[in-house]
Amino acid sequence: MLRVLFSAKPQAWDEYEAPLSDAFAKAGLTVELSRNHTPAQTDYIVFAPNGPVRDFAPYVNTKAVLSLWAGVETVVDNPTLTQPLCRLVDPGLTRGMVEWVTGHVLRHHLGMDAHIRGQDGIWRDGVSPPLAAERPVTILGIGALGAACGQALAYLGFPVTGWSRSPKDVPHLQCLHGEDGLQEALAGAQIVVLLLPQTAQTQNILSGHSLALMAKGACVINPGRGPLIDDEALLAALDSGQIAHATLDVFRREPLPADHPFWAHPRVTVTPHIAATTRPDTAAKIIAENVRRGEAGLPFLNVVDRQLGY
Amino acid sequence: MLRVLFSAKPQAWDEYEAPLSDAFAKAGLTVELSRNHTPAQTDYIVFAPNGPVRDFAPYVNTKAVLSLWAGVETVVDNPTLTQPLCRLVDPGLTRGMVEWVTGHVLRHHLGMDAHIRGQDGIWRDGVSPPLAAERPVTILGIGALGAACGQALAYLGFPVTGWSRSPKDVPHLQCLHGEDGLQEALAGAQIVVLLLPQTAQTQNILSGHSLALMAKGACVINPGRGPLIDDEALLAALDSGQIAHATLDVFRREPLPADHPFWAHPRVTVTPHIAATTRPDTAAKIIAENVRRGEAGLPFLNVVDRQLGY
Repeated sequence: MLRVLFSAKPQAWDEYEAPLSDAFAKAGLTVELSRNHTPAQTDYIVFAPNGPVRDFAPYVNTKAVLSLWAGVETVVDNPTLTQPLCRLVDPGLTRGMVEWVTGHVLRHHLGMDAHIRGQDGIWRDGVSPPLAAERPVTILGIGALGAACGQALAYLGFPVTGWSRSPKDVPHLQCLHGEDGLQEALAGAQIVVLLLPQTAQTQNILSGHSLALMAKGACVINPGRGPLIDDEALLAALDSGQIAHATLDVFRREPLPADHPFWAHPRVTVTPHIAATTRPDTAAKIIAENVRRGEAGLPFLNVVDRQLGY
Repeated sequence: MLRVLFSAKPQAWDEYEAPLSDAFAKAGLTVELSRNHTPAQTDYIVFAPNGPVRDFAPYVNTKAVLSLWAGVETVVDNPTLTQPLCRLVDPGLTRGMVEWVTGHVLRHHLGMDAHIRGQDGIWRDGVSPPLAAERPVTILGIGALGAACGQALAYLGFPVTGWSRSPKDVPHLQCLHGEDGLQEALAGAQIVVLLLPQTAQTQNILSGHSLALMAKGACVINPGRGPLIDDEALLAALDSGQIAHATLDVFRREPLPADHPFWAHPRVTVTPHIAATTRPDTAAKIIAENVRRGEAGLPFLNVVDRQLGY
């Protein structure tokens, strides 16, 4: 009998209790899933940063902390956390992100908003957009999410450049890395998608300097993390016309306060952190698989490198 | 020396003269391209339905009529046309159509308009859309354009059903045909894309009856031909809520008159026949290839079946 503690908001319990129980059973595990195991009795913690557990020190017998979230920046620096921490790489979340990113890249590429808003009886058959092949897209961050988005965009014909801190190789993408690579990745980019983890190194990576490297009139799409963008620099670049539009799904403070200038800016689209949501069915399978691996003595999947922060 | 007559609007001449001359030269053909060849001297006609040639009878030595347009419904019934008629299947046009269709399918799938329009400071993080895998899309018409769109949507995870008059087989699509197949293809579809040719059989194929077969709240996307839709039936279905939204790129009369109810309807997006435009560079290569084939005694590409009408 394994004791798995569920530490997240009550609403998450309602969504996850059945899928997790089901996934544990299908993985051949006998599990007591509860929100009330004592620390010393807890074998695994299914964890969301907004749940009750903040101090991991009493969990002396816990074999791993399995995050329900893809982003772990709010827990990775917790000094009480000595157990292995696993990020959630949920195929459902990845698929959702690919759909959201591909949709918004195509929206900007095709100039859809002019038609969605311009239902005024004027037939504006002017200049066609270029084909995707002539629209360079750059993705900052080519982990599981960024790589999947980049491949979908490359399939549709966009020339895609991917950038990461350390060297990576993703088929169909031009992959760059490091500080010099960042300059090259942004130079002339017409659509830039942010899918980096939030670390000390990636904070404000979209600054006045990096925004100026992009093509005049570029679009920025941020489904990653709010602090990747220097908000003031982005607003200035929008006002100068250097950036034509920003579609932002994540913010330094969420919900984005109603008086934040992003809401009122005519060339910003705010979406409420919906680009990719964890899907209980697919997520539960991944968590159960990690418990199974732990019990079988196999290495956990998606263990966070505490030094790198992701 | 081949004499190729260019019969289209003056604006098209400006766009096509250089790409066509270039493509003929690259195909090893010595061509005099002009808007003024006499009928008896004309070897080939590069043709748009809105150009000057209406009577093909005097073109007694003309080996083929090479359409600049993909749709040939306005010329296919011309009784003076006895020469082979070739449709344009332009890879640039196909790519453009795939981008437009994929973009608008994702737009409806993700419910983007609510966010594009709803920049009012209210954080609406409610229900996520399902994944594409749970969003059935049906494409009526799986010729070159419909098949390419269907494959892109299938790649993104949508379950795609394609329908055509006669049996076809397109990889990754559930392919149906004929009258019974049409009922099955529409039953429960959540997004329906129209890419049929305009023929007597396809007129008003989207009628009150067929609209009622779709899932409640389905979206209709028409980048095909205006007369495929019974406009009154569509407006009624939009008003009843059976259809949640229609994005229409083509109309019975173009430009769509400013007083047409489609412009004013809150759940219709009118786009000005931009879904796919012929790209002079890629189109010129296809036309030159057909001239080369004619001169080499090879069968023409994309010859219109005058009986079928496409």
